[in-house]
Amino acid sequence: MEIKEIVKANLRALREKAPLVHNITNYVAMNNTANALLALGASPIMAHTPEEVEDLSAISSSLVINIGTLSPPWIKGMKSAMERAAEVGKPIVLDPVGAGATTFRSDTARSLIETALPKVLRGNASEILALKKGTVKTRGVDSTATVEEAKESADLLARELGCVVCVSGPEDYISDGRRNRRIKNGSRMMAKVTGMGCTATALTGAFVAVEPDPLQAAVCAMAVMGIAGEMAAKKAKGPGTLQFHFFDALYTLGIEDIELSLRAE
Amino acid sequence: MEIKEIVKANLRALREKAPLVHNITNYVAMNNTANALLALGASPIMAHTPEEVEDLSAISSSLVINIGTLSPPWIKGMKSAMERAAEVGKPIVLDPVGAGATTFRSDTARSLIETALPKVLRGNASEILALKKGTVKTRGVDSTATVEEAKESADLLARELGCVVCVSGPEDYISDGRRNRRIKNGSRMMAKVTGMGCTATALTGAFVAVEPDPLQAAVCAMAVMGIAGEMAAKKAKGPGTLQFHFFDALYTLGIEDIELSLRAE
Amino acid sequence: MEIKEIVKANLRALREKAPLVHNITNYVAMNNTANALLALGASPIMAHTPEEVEDLSAISSSLVINIGTLSPPWIKGMKSAMERAAEVGKPIVLDPVGAGATTFRSDTARSLIETALPKVLRGNASEILALKKGTVKTRGVDSTATVEEAKESADLLARELGCVVCVSGPEDYISDGRRNRRIKNGSRMMAKVTGMGCTATALTGAFVAVEPDPLQAAVCAMAVMGIAGEMAAKKAKGPGTLQFHFFDALYTLGIEDIELSLRAE
Repeated sequence: MEIKEIVKANLRALREKAPLVHNITNYVAMNNTANALLALGASPIMAHTPEEVEDLSAISSSLVINIGTLSPPWIKGMKSAMERAAEVGKPIVLDPVGAGATTFRSDTARSLIETALPKVLRGNASEILALKKGTVKTRGVDSTATVEEAKESADLLARELGCVVCVSGPEDYISDGRRNRRIKNGSRMMAKVTGMGCTATALTGAFVAVEPDPLQAAVCAMAVMGIAGEMAAKKAKGPGTLQFHFFDALYTLGIEDIELSLRAE
Repeated sequence: MEIKEIVKANLRALREKAPLVHNITNYVAMNNTANALLALGASPIMAHTPEEVEDLSAISSSLVINIGTLSPPWIKGMKSAMERAAEVGKPIVLDPVGAGATTFRSDTARSLIETALPKVLRGNASEILALKKGTVKTRGVDSTATVEEAKESADLLARELGCVVCVSGPEDYISDGRRNRRIKNGSRMMAKVTGMGCTATALTGAFVAVEPDPLQAAVCAMAVMGIAGEMAAKKAKGPGTLQFHFFDALYTLGIEDIELSLRAE
Repeated sequence: MEIKEIVKANLRALREKAPLVHNITNYVAMNNTANALLALGASPIMAHTPEEVEDLSAISSSLVINIGTLSPPWIKGMKSAMERAAEVGKPIVLDPVGAGATTFRSDTARSLIETALPKVLRGNASEILALKKGTVKTRGVDSTATVEEAKESADLLARELGCVVCVSGPEDYISDGRRNRRIKNGSRMMAKVTGMGCTATALTGAFVAVEPDPLQAAVCAMAVMGIAGEMAAKKAKGPGTLQFHFFDALYTLGIEDIELSLRAE
């Protein structure tokens, strides 16, 4: 099936099924990612304490883990949720925010991957390079490397781990080590809104709940992010207004927008 | 006094008194609820650690407790604040977010109610049903039941506990077990913005600070929510722009808007 | 050099250098301050756990500490980050949110100042009065005193501590105990948006990373806040839309806006 058809079918499925996505994410982006999931048609729940994990794994369709504002009690909650999701077969998406910026984040990301293999690992170029090469130092949570520089590492990491690696940037690169896809939608101004990467990860969490092939699920999430970003950028005068037109765009984004606007290969 | 007159009088009183509302709420909605309280004319303070409870109970006019993103240290802070508020006679409003979705949340909500009886318990239909019936399983934090289905449970729960129960939804139902009110304002798109229920709870916290009858205070909060939501929906193109027009509407909402738009009985 | 020239030069420097600003801030304003830093041209990282402090002090250009939603584990993280920043010579900006409202906050603010002297202490009039006089009780996190009332305390506190004190309000007052500056830009509606003070502190953190004189750095931050606030207020219909036009304004704010609009002395 052509990429466009897959994205269309999965967007329809997502809105029909309205999957419950369990998120353990950072304080900065929690509101954004909940709004993005709601606007697109999913149902978010934010909950991080181990006491709730068993009940949530039973009712949710997928688990999103994001290490943006880490602390030991939250890592405990993340591991507990990942173990339980793995036991009951719910797909996991992991965002290693700031991997490479601090040893603590790189180590935590690796330790979470060992706890339970995510279906999709989504990061920016610096984060993916850091996880593959170990020695790269990123400058913070914003990428200092290009997607082009991270492609080989993404392929190798995907093969090594046995999961899909999604590198987001001006062009998104999605690889399972054998197959790869590129999404060329989006707007440069999206990098000036905090939590856009986290939102991409959350939407991936919604798509893995309806699409069994994680490569295609990541493609759908990045396609929807990019198209909504372009729709929003046309109306925005800066990153402030971009953010709220972006939620509107996720909400109004129709099958015909995918048909007309998706640039993928 | 007619409902419209009560809402008008209390909105005037709220803006004149600008009550300090102490909130222990979830990470997702903290920014929204602070902005909503400020926009309407109250003064919010967000503080969750037991060390501050005594001082805050002395200066604040009411306490809002919301269990949206629970963890044991926060429950400790909630109980400590509730005990102290009860001691000094400050009214409490409780939002049992996600009760029914996990045993942990249902148990925590019940345990908080036992710690100190809130003046108003505000939830969606699923949450109120879960607290009354114990056995209902909600699907997450979004309601899967209708307000109609929850009315009897709301009445019973209100009588059982001796507090006001407010069920929010397309039509809001407010009951103290003997009297009940319905607010028919609002916009369907409000359900696509995260934290709108939490905002309703926070505004109830502002109104219980100026209106001694908690049934009327809850009516005022739901009236203002609904009217502001309608005003915002007229300008919004989706849930993103709705949210910020909503804050504008809370800020600009005048006595004449209540006169013209309130649909209550 | 004239104030306008200093602000222009530092805004250019900030956008060129894009300093990494490490923030330990409150849950309410975390998203706002990250967006403000990004929109202006800096790179924010939010991280609060002691495990990351050493790595972050090496890569960041400054440290912003904000006590808006305190708890003992966060105080531990703040102290650890401040000690490390002092060791490696990275400038610190401190926001004593709610000092005077609770003894816990006043004590924590003082204890943080003893841990490592900030370059700039930025608060509202009530907070600065509380830290100087000890006995003033503020009503919450919103100021109940005027900037005028806090000027003498700001001068004395600046001399006593040996740092810059910045009192924000309708007119901002910045003092190092010998020199003082006033910024007369801004819009009254900014006080109706939560986290605007926190944002001023975060932007001060960005300017201390490019301007070695902390008095001038604070002047730059308040100038940019005020001008962007005015630009936003012209387009806003209330505090909701103000907030997002404000981020747009920080993003689009040009050298000519400073030339035309800055009112400083």
